[in-house]
Amino acid sequence: MDVVVNAAMSVDGKLSSRRREQIKISGPEDFDRVDRIRREVDAVAVGIGTVLADDPHLTLDDPKRQQQRRENGRPPNPARVVIDSRGRTPPDGRICDEAATTFVVVSSAASDERREALEEAGIELIVAGEHRVDLLTAFGELEAAGIDSLLVEGGGELIFSVIKDGLLDRLTVFVGSLVIGGREAPTLADGEGLVEDFPTLSLTAVDRVDDGVVLSYVAEE
Amino acid sequence: MDVVVNAAMSVDGKLSSRRREQIKISGPEDFDRVDRIRREVDAVAVGIGTVLADDPHLTLDDPKRQQQRRENGRPPNPARVVIDSRGRTPPDGRICDEAATTFVVVSSAASDERREALEEAGIELIVAGEHRVDLLTAFGELEAAGIDSLLVEGGGELIFSVIKDGLLDRLTVFVGSLVIGGREAPTLADGEGLVEDFPTLSLTAVDRVDDGVVLSYVAEE
Repeated sequence: MDVVVNAAMSVDGKLSSRRREQIKISGPEDFDRVDRIRREVDAVAVGIGTVLADDPHLTLDDPKRQQQRRENGRPPNPARVVIDSRGRTPPDGRICDEAATTFVVVSSAASDERREALEEAGIELIVAGEHRVDLLTAFGELEAAGIDSLLVEGGGELIFSVIKDGLLDRLTVFVGSLVIGGREAPTLADGEGLVEDFPTLSLTAVDRVDDGVVLSYVAEE
Repeated sequence: MDVVVNAAMSVDGKLSSRRREQIKISGPEDFDRVDRIRREVDAVAVGIGTVLADDPHLTLDDPKRQQQRRENGRPPNPARVVIDSRGRTPPDGRICDEAATTFVVVSSAASDERREALEEAGIELIVAGEHRVDLLTAFGELEAAGIDSLLVEGGGELIFSVIKDGLLDRLTVFVGSLVIGGREAPTLADGEGLVEDFPTLSLTAVDRVDDGVVLSYVAEE
């Protein structure tokens, strides 16, 4: 499976403020760029933190792009994936609506009650890992379900796990020209962090977009 | 006073790992770039966290550049400034040696004992602020002492304060092609962080340097 991470961060690497509210970091040109990436992929993934903070929809903004997908024999929107160890995805959230197939990947720690509520809401449930989602298993299950390309949009906890587990193929990040600050604000890659053997990337492109810059990387072998 | 911030961070905005050990983020071309900035300024400033973590020297690496400064009637190295609310700078640290003048800016909360120890080590002591250093006062005092241009090299706590207090004129950041991760790792701008009215910058240049990219900004009025 081809795994692309895309996100927008401030100059200081923040995805949001310490309050975890959505902040306008990029602009119309970058939104369009992200919409174009979404058009190409089989599924878009986020972590449960992002679902609870932002209630995202993760569908294509541009109806023409939905039409293009239909013409190529694909569903109008990519599938949606939530990495959600304890099954906290709200079944009435926007990400669970009818606009696209939604996979929620839980661990064995998710209660039966929550799993049932999600299945009743029409969610495709995947169980991978004991206490936390095991991403390698999860991505294998998604691939078995026909997902050959995945766009990971955040948050920083999921992005860090994808990189740490060696699952990243490409990373694009829009760096907006603002400073958010905050030692507790979420960053592009959070989690426990590394203290050695830092994953290195190859910078393949630098493009000025809106008032900022998009940095494109591929993972090194 | 002209205030420039310069730092090197990972793709995810980290200056170091959660252990706060020095990590090689940039390379020889970027070191040379920083040395050239140091050559031009009257002083180089860091926060006490950086002094305690890294024991930095903050002098020019290139003897030719020291010579150039001498020829221009300036001291061979820029002065060094530590922003250090409680006066914890070790008097035997490298930053207190004879290579350059050193200013330690403390608040009224620094004990007499620590102030005396620093003065005995030949440090120029500046007191600014009650419990924490008041940067506006501090920078005014430095200007009165002949410092017309200041390079702030970190850490993230000091950089955030400089930006929040509206003291930043220019920012250059080297973005290295590695991922450090960690919700507790220091970032380019830490502190409390902002939740609204985020300072915006103007991106003036994007230059590929070593295996990464240098982003140059000026503060917006």
